[in-house]
Amino acid sequence: MNRPEKGREIHLRRNPTGTPVEDDFEVVVVPVIKPADGEVLVRTRFFSVDPYMRGRISAARGYADPWPPGEAMRGGCVGEVIESGDPALPVGAFVLGGYGWREYYRARADEVNRIEPGETPLSAYLGVLGMPGMTAYVGLLTIGGLERGESVFVSGAAGAVGSTVCQIARLHDCRVVGSAGSERKVEWLTERARIDAFNYKKNTDLTAELKSRFPDGIDVYFDNVGGAHLEAAIANMNRHGRIVACGMISTYNTTEPPPGPRNMMRIVGERLTIRGFIVGDHAEQRERFTERMTSWIESGDVVYEETVVDGIENAPRAFIGLFSGENLGKMVVKV
Amino acid sequence: MNRPEKGREIHLRRNPTGTPVEDDFEVVVVPVIKPADGEVLVRTRFFSVDPYMRGRISAARGYADPWPPGEAMRGGCVGEVIESGDPALPVGAFVLGGYGWREYYRARADEVNRIEPGETPLSAYLGVLGMPGMTAYVGLLTIGGLERGESVFVSGAAGAVGSTVCQIARLHDCRVVGSAGSERKVEWLTERARIDAFNYKKNTDLTAELKSRFPDGIDVYFDNVGGAHLEAAIANMNRHGRIVACGMISTYNTTEPPPGPRNMMRIVGERLTIRGFIVGDHAEQRERFTERMTSWIESGDVVYEETVVDGIENAPRAFIGLFSGENLGKMVVKV
Repeated sequence: MNRPEKGREIHLRRNPTGTPVEDDFEVVVVPVIKPADGEVLVRTRFFSVDPYMRGRISAARGYADPWPPGEAMRGGCVGEVIESGDPALPVGAFVLGGYGWREYYRARADEVNRIEPGETPLSAYLGVLGMPGMTAYVGLLTIGGLERGESVFVSGAAGAVGSTVCQIARLHDCRVVGSAGSERKVEWLTERARIDAFNYKKNTDLTAELKSRFPDGIDVYFDNVGGAHLEAAIANMNRHGRIVACGMISTYNTTEPPPGPRNMMRIVGERLTIRGFIVGDHAEQRERFTERMTSWIESGDVVYEETVVDGIENAPRAFIGLFSGENLGKMVVKV
Repeated sequence: MNRPEKGREIHLRRNPTGTPVEDDFEVVVVPVIKPADGEVLVRTRFFSVDPYMRGRISAARGYADPWPPGEAMRGGCVGEVIESGDPALPVGAFVLGGYGWREYYRARADEVNRIEPGETPLSAYLGVLGMPGMTAYVGLLTIGGLERGESVFVSGAAGAVGSTVCQIARLHDCRVVGSAGSERKVEWLTERARIDAFNYKKNTDLTAELKSRFPDGIDVYFDNVGGAHLEAAIANMNRHGRIVACGMISTYNTTEPPPGPRNMMRIVGERLTIRGFIVGDHAEQRERFTERMTSWIESGDVVYEETVVDGIENAPRAFIGLFSGENLGKMVVKV
């Protein structure tokens, strides 16, 4: 296709307070500029909205520098080279980049990764085969040190990361229970992901719920949610249990510091480990992860779901929807 | 000495609610019985009162079975064999046992450990050379994975465990800061243990205090206190920092579940590890620990302090005093 004159981007207008609203973002039309030598121009097909982005658009520095208002939102995106200044990445090549919520972007050819999707849907590179899938893989196996046959509890189990964690654990002969926030998600987990699951919104006593689901206790808890889930899991962990601290979505939009677990002393008594991680620290596992995950997907051992929101202008709504649990599986925006 | 007819013990009368009071305990006079074959009769010289005992006298099962009301309090004790039914432990031998708050006890010879104190004060086997000393050693080196030159924060730094942690860290060329609850303790830490220390009761903002004491952050936090200390430490941990969860004395007497750290998300972002442990799981390190600690004490590299309370009838007061910080170093009861 020819290079258009202009393209749309979603910019952060201001740092949200509490739960983000659509007005925190704006559509901005920018000129699409010819790539220089060594650069490519990419037309984005899908980009990612992820819970972690909430931390990056806070004014306070979290674990990485905040994304400043007045600029385009960042994050994973897959697209096609439509004009190239580098013979290594010809027009028509597909690439994975970190250029965010834009219709078009220009980048140095060595700042994107070429992918060869073949039969694989492009969007999978943002989900099960991408950052969230690898987060599940590294978190469960390396950080959690999962052993065959253990009891595994996963919160946010129907999300992009959680749904993959559940299935990797199932493939390790583990007893897996996931929590999710709707009947539809529970059904998906039970029927498609083939694990045990419950709707945490239907039960006010998470600790008792876990007690009944895990009469013999939990060996590994994969925490995507924090808050009450974390406290309930701590209460049900087995001796020498491990808690993988991956995310705490229940706390991302709080305007006051969220209450912490009131049973921290169990960490001592039961010799628990809570360990946080960021998948970016484990890039050396990418190749092996891709190989194994591709094989699991091909064999049907791992299934995945996507929630696709159409149109870049709807990206803020898609992003905000993550916090009310509107996604089943990976939430992506189709451009 | 001859076997007396009767001896005193301190029994738990009832499970304390909140902070224990003296009335939760009672002095009971019991007959002193001749040891059978394979048994010894021991006259206790010193016994231990430790914070962990608070958990054991709660009605609820903690990480171990509770000690029931109507029985003698348990715990570490050192004494001398005064009558023996086992040639391997003759009269006059010194032994370390777990028989608690009693003037005399009978035990199978293989259920006590012979010690050869030589120049070492007997009470040291309850402190720096005993369970608390080994807790410090295992916790800091094995659980915390301390590396030379790291920045180490220790709470409860003037207690039996904390004071030893501080000095082991100092011997590993670490920058060490301890928190304690009185000027006298701070002075001891600074002048005798030769580390930096502050009185946390003089400052309401622990997070800011740690920020000023550790402008480059904390690598290892050895937690004896929990509560506000833990939250403040989490706020100041460096990336990949480790928190050794040894005890949480600030929470032991709460009647409501104590508030947890409100900044748990830093565990994810900064890739922190919180790991609990119980020294009893690491018995294989005892020999090496004893060897190294003995050598550190002989060289003056590790100094230790004891708070000795005289008279078995004062044991409840000594125990209760642990929670208001009346001990400098190890609190022991001299019988």
